[in-house]
Amino acid sequence: MNISDMRRVILGAPIPTTEAAHQRLSKAKALAVFSSDALSSTAYATEAILLVLIAAGTGSLGVSMWIALGIAALLLIVAFSYYQTIHAYPNGGGAYIVSKDNLGKMPGLVAASSLLIDYILTVAVSVSAGVAALTSAFHGLDPLRIEIALVIVIFITVMNLRGVKESGTFFAIPTYAFVVGIMTMIVIGVAKVIMGDVTPVQPPDAETLAEATTASGGLTLFLVLRAYAGGCTALTGVEAISNGIPAFRSPESRNAGQTLLIMVALLTTMFLGITFLANQYDVVAVEGSEQTVVAQIAEAVLGENIAFYYLQLATLLILSLAANTAFADFPRLASLIARDRYLPRQLTNLGDRLVFSNGIISLAVLASALIVIFGAEEHNLLPLYAVGVFLSFTLSQTGMVVHWLKERHEEGFTPDWEWRFHIGLNAFGAFCTFIVLIILAVTKFVEGAWIVTVLIPMLVFLFIRIHKHYDKVAASLTLDGLQPGHIRELFPDQGHVPVVVLANSLNRCSLQAIEYAVRFSDNVRVCAIEVEPDAVIRLKQKWQEWHLNVPLDVVPSPYRAIGAPLIEYLHKRDIENPQGDPTTVVLPEFVVSTWWEKLLHNQTSTAIRDALYRDQIARGRGRPVINVPYRIGDELYEPIAVEPLKKGVTGKLRPPTTD
Amino acid sequence: MNISDMRRVILGAPIPTTEAAHQRLSKAKALAVFSSDALSSTAYATEAILLVLIAAGTGSLGVSMWIALGIAALLLIVAFSYYQTIHAYPNGGGAYIVSKDNLGKMPGLVAASSLLIDYILTVAVSVSAGVAALTSAFHGLDPLRIEIALVIVIFITVMNLRGVKESGTFFAIPTYAFVVGIMTMIVIGVAKVIMGDVTPVQPPDAETLAEATTASGGLTLFLVLRAYAGGCTALTGVEAISNGIPAFRSPESRNAGQTLLIMVALLTTMFLGITFLANQYDVVAVEGSEQTVVAQIAEAVLGENIAFYYLQLATLLILSLAANTAFADFPRLASLIARDRYLPRQLTNLGDRLVFSNGIISLAVLASALIVIFGAEEHNLLPLYAVGVFLSFTLSQTGMVVHWLKERHEEGFTPDWEWRFHIGLNAFGAFCTFIVLIILAVTKFVEGAWIVTVLIPMLVFLFIRIHKHYDKVAASLTLDGLQPGHIRELFPDQGHVPVVVLANSLNRCSLQAIEYAVRFSDNVRVCAIEVEPDAVIRLKQKWQEWHLNVPLDVVPSPYRAIGAPLIEYLHKRDIENPQGDPTTVVLPEFVVSTWWEKLLHNQTSTAIRDALYRDQIARGRGRPVINVPYRIGDELYEPIAVEPLKKGVTGKLRPPTTD
Repeated sequence: MNISDMRRVILGAPIPTTEAAHQRLSKAKALAVFSSDALSSTAYATEAILLVLIAAGTGSLGVSMWIALGIAALLLIVAFSYYQTIHAYPNGGGAYIVSKDNLGKMPGLVAASSLLIDYILTVAVSVSAGVAALTSAFHGLDPLRIEIALVIVIFITVMNLRGVKESGTFFAIPTYAFVVGIMTMIVIGVAKVIMGDVTPVQPPDAETLAEATTASGGLTLFLVLRAYAGGCTALTGVEAISNGIPAFRSPESRNAGQTLLIMVALLTTMFLGITFLANQYDVVAVEGSEQTVVAQIAEAVLGENIAFYYLQLATLLILSLAANTAFADFPRLASLIARDRYLPRQLTNLGDRLVFSNGIISLAVLASALIVIFGAEEHNLLPLYAVGVFLSFTLSQTGMVVHWLKERHEEGFTPDWEWRFHIGLNAFGAFCTFIVLIILAVTKFVEGAWIVTVLIPMLVFLFIRIHKHYDKVAASLTLDGLQPGHIRELFPDQGHVPVVVLANSLNRCSLQAIEYAVRFSDNVRVCAIEVEPDAVIRLKQKWQEWHLNVPLDVVPSPYRAIGAPLIEYLHKRDIENPQGDPTTVVLPEFVVSTWWEKLLHNQTSTAIRDALYRDQIARGRGRPVINVPYRIGDELYEPIAVEPLKKGVTGKLRPPTTD
Repeated sequence: MNISDMRRVILGAPIPTTEAAHQRLSKAKALAVFSSDALSSTAYATEAILLVLIAAGTGSLGVSMWIALGIAALLLIVAFSYYQTIHAYPNGGGAYIVSKDNLGKMPGLVAASSLLIDYILTVAVSVSAGVAALTSAFHGLDPLRIEIALVIVIFITVMNLRGVKESGTFFAIPTYAFVVGIMTMIVIGVAKVIMGDVTPVQPPDAETLAEATTASGGLTLFLVLRAYAGGCTALTGVEAISNGIPAFRSPESRNAGQTLLIMVALLTTMFLGITFLANQYDVVAVEGSEQTVVAQIAEAVLGENIAFYYLQLATLLILSLAANTAFADFPRLASLIARDRYLPRQLTNLGDRLVFSNGIISLAVLASALIVIFGAEEHNLLPLYAVGVFLSFTLSQTGMVVHWLKERHEEGFTPDWEWRFHIGLNAFGAFCTFIVLIILAVTKFVEGAWIVTVLIPMLVFLFIRIHKHYDKVAASLTLDGLQPGHIRELFPDQGHVPVVVLANSLNRCSLQAIEYAVRFSDNVRVCAIEVEPDAVIRLKQKWQEWHLNVPLDVVPSPYRAIGAPLIEYLHKRDIENPQGDPTTVVLPEFVVSTWWEKLLHNQTSTAIRDALYRDQIARGRGRPVINVPYRIGDELYEPIAVEPLKKGVTGKLRPPTTD
């Protein structure tokens, strides 16, 4: 089985470009692909609030419901903003596009870099969290956590390389399993609350509680803000759909918008439901606790039975597969940035399964690097997380404010209050997300958020350098300033290109190259670099014998180098050429079939290539190089110019010339 | 400072080929270069004998003097044999040449592989031993032993890359310091013995002695044989001079022979002297002792003063620089083997300092690998050592027996007894070294000698595979069966070579390539692979605009691959060619100056190259490829065929054609 067969087994048969429209996602699948990140955050958002509030004692935990309502309000504002964006930018309008279009290049690039960094973090964090859930069940696997995390990343990568539709089908299962599980728990839990059938969960022992209650001043505004910021992780992933509009079936904007609404409805219900039940069942979260808040609620509501374990498993799966949302969005966003020439063009290539393979692989490599560096410990990575998302939220909402200001006359908002409403909503959203961003950056700065504040400008700098390079290339390549002309009429006489064939011995390989050269030019010379004097003596003898009618130049190389004498010789030839054209170099070359045979050859040609490359850089002018490969094998190449003694191939034979 | 300047600082200015004769070594320097391995073995050979004999109790240690005399006799036999070889093979006659010439290909290759392996082991063992001496003085350095060993290897490598003469000068100091130190100690020691002024060294405590005395049966023949085999490490390195004859000044054989005699005289005196003093001073060697035998003698003879520490330092230096002998011989031997095409030809290249740089670097890499694998612990490596040397001794002496048998009539040995004496000596030497080989292999097999018995055949297999490959290449390249002919007369009409230029867009780079192609052929087509339909539409529009008179073929690629559709297209073109010649491919190419810019380009051309390579392997026929590089930079390339609107370069302008 060769590589191409293996590729087909792993990735599936190639999909033709014309199939692109059929590879789009239905709303049900798109919901699974683009919302696993957002929905999975309900597994830990409530806990993030409670963990902060406990510092002011158990009595303050009731505030969590108000904080959750505040977060839900913010979520609705952000979601509504993106709903508007989806319709305003039907070709995919994430924070990058919106910021770039409305705020300018730099804000766009900042949004782009914070989103890219956050997607990489999403993969690293969510896979690490999945592994943590697994190893807390099977302690024996703990030494293998990095390996397991990398296997999961490879698995998700392969699924995504197989194609959007296929991975959508596959990853839909855990997402819906999680939604059904949480919803069932909420329904039963709320029913029990209504019926007054509530058994509060066992509180932690007094010592643990006393230890957790650290804020001597009781519930301060700062504590509430920190709790709010912590709970805002519920918002991560909300932007995913706006980046992925082109993956939806037509009409893309409408389908994407509806999917966004469904996602937000689910997310809000689940988040508020969990927080409500946590309050009703007196759930307390402390650092280092063995059971998560959701697990405590589930145990209290469902009891420790099959339903409880089902929910635990579904949580584990969605946590590690939240990474899939990043795999759906990162390559798309990277391709948009690359299309604008701020990232390598290869990121815009559609692979043979119609996905941005290079983007998928880049994401996998970068996330794997993070996993290895941070030892697959998600709590090391969490402080880096969320800052990027809220930066992009703020930029995107601010962008929408400018958008409405610009478009207010064109779009035909009949009532004046309509655009005022749009602007007000987005401005309020921008303000709120900006506040959260500041809180996040301040509270998490020392723990690792500073890394992100360093990485974002670095990435922006990289974008700009790449863009400058492509600009330079474009300026070098432009046909501006030239007029079309008939090439053929200007070169009536082909066949006088100055050519030098490099050869240190005369054999079938070099003979083939010489024959090739004389077939297209009457200005051919052969050049031998005199590294070993003996070899040159042998070559000269053979040259006499074969009287090939092609001049042989021997270039001395007292220090046995190849590059420098060759370049010097070529420069001498160049001067002799009409119009100073660079002399063409012909390299006879061996073709062998195995890697170890390659090791035995062509070291010289590497040195020649290096020297030619450096000369081109220095002179600012390219020099054409012709490789004439000679296949080493059982079949002999039959020279055309000379008669073989044995039977040759018909049609190639010419009468020999006698001297 | 660029790479070439750095190279010059580290390695020195290049030495011209004509200087080769002046780079030869004087006898004094050659003795240092080629004998440091052999002479350094006196630092541990006596100890190796005593360590075995102690098993039969301290009463049996006196036998060591007889064993040493037996080893000295063997040494003289081997040395005399090599003295003969040096004169019989004045161009360098190590075990490889002698075995190959007289016993045949396979024994030659076996000798070669055992010597190569032994040289690698010499470097690893001697550097590790040097580091062990250092870390036993400075315990704090122990965690860094591998790093220190690698630094020493790099240092010796750089010195050897600087040239034979220069490293000879440098490494002479420790060698002569060691010889002077040991000789002084022997002279003083023997003088004290004669004057009856001997203070025996402190024996180990009774418990240690009782533990070391393990042989219940007393002194058995097997024990004596093991002691003999252990002491035979004194012989390692004796063959070095015979491999290095070409490094001597003219007359090479005479100078090499004299150097060999001096070395053997020194070696015998030092070895016997140390063993004699060890007996006289009642030195006992036990495993794990803190002081070596030589150190014990030195302390007893010289007292613990500056002379004692001088000798310790000299021993440390010569032990770690014994590696230098291997660096002098390995590259030479490898180049001889490579000249016979059993190793890659690159090993025959003389670097710019007139040394076999590739061989030196290969030795450094392999020895470093051994050091890392065995943790720079020389006692792990010792069992692997010496087997190879004695195998090559045996083969070389047997080869000399055959040599004398063949040459007895030709060489004109007037008295009949002369060649009988030669044969007798070599046959006896072969027998003795064979016995030692068997003892070494048997006593050390389990501890690691088995590795060598596996490695030698593996290396021989590799030699043969490489040779077969070069044979295949030679058979492919041979001009046998062909008659010389005038190439030029057979191709009167240049300029009809079938050419395809690959281009997916029309810009200065592709235009330059097209212009180049039409200058040497009137049979040019341009081919675009339709990966992105939009790009092809733009290309077709431009083609219309520019009416270049060159046909444009668009090749559909439904699966967005480049290789397969291109190869299919080329095969179609090939069939249309007269005589079925392969169509030449022209690749327009960007030249950029930094590595990161390279990452941004030419991925497509890698895919094309891969596809062409695989096609050549499959069809058994090479296809010429022309790279037309275009330098991306500030200066614009001025097309020849079309008039620039701005001022162009004089001489390149042609009148534009109007359509």
